[in-house]
Amino acid sequence: MIHFESDYLEGAHENILKRMQESNLMQTCGYGMDEICESARKRIQKAIGNSKADVHFLVGGTQTNLIVIDAILRPYQGVISAESGHINVHETGAVEACGHKVISLKSEDGTISGNQVKEVMENHLHDSNKEHTVQPAMVYISFPTENGTLYSKKQLKDLYQVCTHYHLPLFIDGARLGYGLMSEKNDITLKELSKLCDVFYIGGTKVGALFGEAVVITKDALKKDFRYMIKQRGGMLAKGRMLGIQFDELFKDDLYFKISKHAIEMAMQIKQACIEASIPFAYESFTNQQFLLLSDTQYKKLSSKFVVSDFGKKNDMNIIRICTSWATTQNNTDALIEMLKTI
Amino acid sequence: MIHFESDYLEGAHENILKRMQESNLMQTCGYGMDEICESARKRIQKAIGNSKADVHFLVGGTQTNLIVIDAILRPYQGVISAESGHINVHETGAVEACGHKVISLKSEDGTISGNQVKEVMENHLHDSNKEHTVQPAMVYISFPTENGTLYSKKQLKDLYQVCTHYHLPLFIDGARLGYGLMSEKNDITLKELSKLCDVFYIGGTKVGALFGEAVVITKDALKKDFRYMIKQRGGMLAKGRMLGIQFDELFKDDLYFKISKHAIEMAMQIKQACIEASIPFAYESFTNQQFLLLSDTQYKKLSSKFVVSDFGKKNDMNIIRICTSWATTQNNTDALIEMLKTI
Amino acid sequence: MIHFESDYLEGAHENILKRMQESNLMQTCGYGMDEICESARKRIQKAIGNSKADVHFLVGGTQTNLIVIDAILRPYQGVISAESGHINVHETGAVEACGHKVISLKSEDGTISGNQVKEVMENHLHDSNKEHTVQPAMVYISFPTENGTLYSKKQLKDLYQVCTHYHLPLFIDGARLGYGLMSEKNDITLKELSKLCDVFYIGGTKVGALFGEAVVITKDALKKDFRYMIKQRGGMLAKGRMLGIQFDELFKDDLYFKISKHAIEMAMQIKQACIEASIPFAYESFTNQQFLLLSDTQYKKLSSKFVVSDFGKKNDMNIIRICTSWATTQNNTDALIEMLKTI
Amino acid sequence: MIHFESDYLEGAHENILKRMQESNLMQTCGYGMDEICESARKRIQKAIGNSKADVHFLVGGTQTNLIVIDAILRPYQGVISAESGHINVHETGAVEACGHKVISLKSEDGTISGNQVKEVMENHLHDSNKEHTVQPAMVYISFPTENGTLYSKKQLKDLYQVCTHYHLPLFIDGARLGYGLMSEKNDITLKELSKLCDVFYIGGTKVGALFGEAVVITKDALKKDFRYMIKQRGGMLAKGRMLGIQFDELFKDDLYFKISKHAIEMAMQIKQACIEASIPFAYESFTNQQFLLLSDTQYKKLSSKFVVSDFGKKNDMNIIRICTSWATTQNNTDALIEMLKTI
Repeated sequence: MIHFESDYLEGAHENILKRMQESNLMQTCGYGMDEICESARKRIQKAIGNSKADVHFLVGGTQTNLIVIDAILRPYQGVISAESGHINVHETGAVEACGHKVISLKSEDGTISGNQVKEVMENHLHDSNKEHTVQPAMVYISFPTENGTLYSKKQLKDLYQVCTHYHLPLFIDGARLGYGLMSEKNDITLKELSKLCDVFYIGGTKVGALFGEAVVITKDALKKDFRYMIKQRGGMLAKGRMLGIQFDELFKDDLYFKISKHAIEMAMQIKQACIEASIPFAYESFTNQQFLLLSDTQYKKLSSKFVVSDFGKKNDMNIIRICTSWATTQNNTDALIEMLKTI
Repeated sequence: MIHFESDYLEGAHENILKRMQESNLMQTCGYGMDEICESARKRIQKAIGNSKADVHFLVGGTQTNLIVIDAILRPYQGVISAESGHINVHETGAVEACGHKVISLKSEDGTISGNQVKEVMENHLHDSNKEHTVQPAMVYISFPTENGTLYSKKQLKDLYQVCTHYHLPLFIDGARLGYGLMSEKNDITLKELSKLCDVFYIGGTKVGALFGEAVVITKDALKKDFRYMIKQRGGMLAKGRMLGIQFDELFKDDLYFKISKHAIEMAMQIKQACIEASIPFAYESFTNQQFLLLSDTQYKKLSSKFVVSDFGKKNDMNIIRICTSWATTQNNTDALIEMLKTI
Repeated sequence: MIHFESDYLEGAHENILKRMQESNLMQTCGYGMDEICESARKRIQKAIGNSKADVHFLVGGTQTNLIVIDAILRPYQGVISAESGHINVHETGAVEACGHKVISLKSEDGTISGNQVKEVMENHLHDSNKEHTVQPAMVYISFPTENGTLYSKKQLKDLYQVCTHYHLPLFIDGARLGYGLMSEKNDITLKELSKLCDVFYIGGTKVGALFGEAVVITKDALKKDFRYMIKQRGGMLAKGRMLGIQFDELFKDDLYFKISKHAIEMAMQIKQACIEASIPFAYESFTNQQFLLLSDTQYKKLSSKFVVSDFGKKNDMNIIRICTSWATTQNNTDALIEMLKTI
Repeated sequence: MIHFESDYLEGAHENILKRMQESNLMQTCGYGMDEICESARKRIQKAIGNSKADVHFLVGGTQTNLIVIDAILRPYQGVISAESGHINVHETGAVEACGHKVISLKSEDGTISGNQVKEVMENHLHDSNKEHTVQPAMVYISFPTENGTLYSKKQLKDLYQVCTHYHLPLFIDGARLGYGLMSEKNDITLKELSKLCDVFYIGGTKVGALFGEAVVITKDALKKDFRYMIKQRGGMLAKGRMLGIQFDELFKDDLYFKISKHAIEMAMQIKQACIEASIPFAYESFTNQQFLLLSDTQYKKLSSKFVVSDFGKKNDMNIIRICTSWATTQNNTDALIEMLKTI
């Protein structure tokens, strides 16, 4: 069986393993205060062109989301998210477990607009009993979204403008950031994205690392005491340099972007094959996740040789997710394309 | 100005004040363990025909909802509710503040069906990554609903049957229970309702008391250590007998039902007047809350003499809530009806 | 049996019941925004000589403590308290349930000193791994303490100076404030106390009211959005005017102070009787709570006619709490004194 | 500089890196459901002689402690721990952040006794107002303790007997389990330890792994839905096999025990050197952590060549922690011993 069900099937890029091997018996202090983490921080600050940004390394996405959100909100405040947002669906209520409501907004493709946020804020501000409702106090989006879709620079600017107007910190979940940035349809650079939000994270787990997400805090007001939050929520890795090693390698010689680009190329080949085979899509994605609509027969046939993800039904068709990653081989992609031609 | 904006505008029924006066200098122990609370408990157990039910007296609705729900759920579990449910909209995220997600279901009129709950459970149970999502673990409904609508005995039986099948405790918010039970359209008795759920509360604040809700726990598994929960969440009144006095009076000689019936009569007179004046309704309510659809002009005119509640817009009409209560006078009702005839 | 086990045995001062009676059928808006609450707020602002202070009315002490503390702290912060502090012992972990550690300090008599707080802060600030420990971020004291003891003006000034130096808000639990202020040993006025902390509350439940605590916030930084906190934690009373009525009466013509003084007079008579009968005390209290050390025989004899509170053992003696209150009669006091003479 | 300040200075045992290298491009499903995790689980079940135990792999110690404790307790319950327990001191209030009080017990050496737990329980059960206090509901101990001390088999049996009598689950924090089990003074086997508690964890981070703790749940009542807890608290690693690889290697050919034994040998050489140099100890430790009492001069001299941990003062002496680990070399140990001879 060949696996396309997720983008965390394999281990890590060879450079990372090599660096771990080389540095294995080094003695360093713990908790992310070592020189390797420091070097990784500097590379990321350089990549976003902001030497004042705080950079923290966490282990996983859910952990990162709950810590960032819990660090920002006061007890009676909630976070605005698309109803399809990862924090609203696939984190077992991690945000609620920290005491906060996820205020979910309708979304066709996984994105939300500045106007939707504006409407939420205006309704709240004009509610004469506003203290009886959760106070919307920050905005969460994912780039790319859970559906593989992207915000255009214009959409993101509009959203951030509204957030700024209402003093809502904007947090971008970049679990798949590289796959968004390297999409042929994307018109935003990492530098620009870092200036169109207050805090975001660069996903490592799905983009070449064994694990790890790099939180980048650009807004000064959000920087204070963040390490206390990490420690309290169990996110502070004792051998923190393992995280430093991974991001130091990923941000050396643009490795992060190169391997992301490869995943996109594989995905676009698959997308093209679907178009040629007249296989419809559930969402119009130009990133590494493709959502195909397959009949039961097609799904069954595909599953005979490939492992994919089942995302439920749309009408009577099955929503099937196919993921590529930094590790996807041309051979496996070719094999999948062959199959797609015949179903 | 005459007030119809809520059902907690006045103080308490005279019998309650009289009893407070008489018993004022009695010395009793605190925290609800006194003889007056004991007497009130017995009256409620008698009224529901279940001497084994646990009865606890709390101060207010939000407090009651959060304590009951927090007492039942484990950290990763959530409560199913109509999206219009009070816990989902008007309690400032009190349930989330206890760590739990409110799993909201679409609802036209404020009720949810057994089939909707069944669908939630089946989707969860068949999710291969179910531990990535909040586990639905109890059901919350209000009777009557926030829109003044009611569950028929058949609807409630169907819902409870589904809950029982999936081992979901069913919790009924009875903040306005009297006004539901005494509605001409209601076909459920208090005794029956107490057998069609696992825990519910009898609202006092809106039905003749100064404050107070009586939680009735019929399911043994939910009884353990409930007083610890009350105390921890700040719900244990030092002079607990004040709550006992109110429910002892309300359940003496069916006072609770008599005063509820009065509120319904006033509401039905108003409803009739609306029908005759061809004023449409936002919801088809036969309880003490009536939701009128008024044009801006009508709303303005009404507001010249009456205080009502604004529940937003439906298309271009204003949703106006008019509440009656145990304390609503025939005079005020007549005055309102006169006005309704002319707008 | 005559009861001396607590200071919340009876109902409320007659003026309060009278006012409830008179105003019972008034129609007012809810949630503490009515004119009676407004009048009560003004009386309290006048009593402390600060028209800018925010005044909120809550139902009970545990509720008040958890809401004030939760409103002030960020998730990784804790509150400093004497180990005997009410929040640390008798609130079922209400503060922890909001996510915060109570950092407890040793205390002989229930008070803590500025030097103790200074030591905690210096240890934390000089800890190279400080983010691995809870950040001390506010100080909680009770006046009088749970042991009936008091802070002198000098002690409170020293403590507040340290708090100010380390930017620690100081919160004073005044559940029995009146009984502290009217003690013959007290040298602090209400006005002065209000200036030697950032937030405090005036206890009503134990001092003449049916229930109710008035939170007074003097520090601007702590005022924002407090009503959201009250609502979320279930502390917002629908018929809020009931709280307004009680504090409006208590702060009319110094009633609060007069009835507190009466309780102290009764307590001092009892204290004098103990001294004459050579009955030792567990704590040197000049407030309404007296802690006697009685042998088993003495305790047994006392209990034949009087209900008192058992506070455990000190060596082989029983710590017995006797409370007076605004409602304690001279007759009951005389009867108790007679008994104390003979045991 | 040579480092002895902690036992997580280096990377991982070479076998682990080798296995990561070999398996790097394997495609496996995520979240710990892969075949490598399955193999590691079986090895651990074999090592404890219990094929029915649930084994879960988490990333770090604080995360493990908070998830296990939060999974066991109901909202109003607390966990009993030595005041020096890691959860009470060095986890930034992680347990409180989940809503639970740590009920701390005095301890000279870091251990607590069955009698201490019995006293807590008896006091609580005989408290007539018990619902006003946190309900003690589980016991947390560390083996070895934070001070390097151990429980004898007799002590642990006594403690567990008391826990069983009061229905208190006993949780053993085994962050340094290997270093305890291989101590010459230890008389408990892993098999025996697994039967003298209800849940425990095998520390990997400090004993040869890059990171990772293996939670072993032997009590059936504690097994349900544990994976929901892991996910909600951000402890579920996407590429879960990384954890499987580490424990599969550590429990192959007793590697875990062999490398632990090495650390103990290095520590005992250092301990012997201290004795010969008449350097006193703060605690009588026979595990990999040694707590020396050094004068300022001695401390200064030691620090010229070695990095150690400062654990504060005992009288006028400095408490200095020296840690060995699986990675400590004989050369570094010899160098340290040389130094100890001369100071």
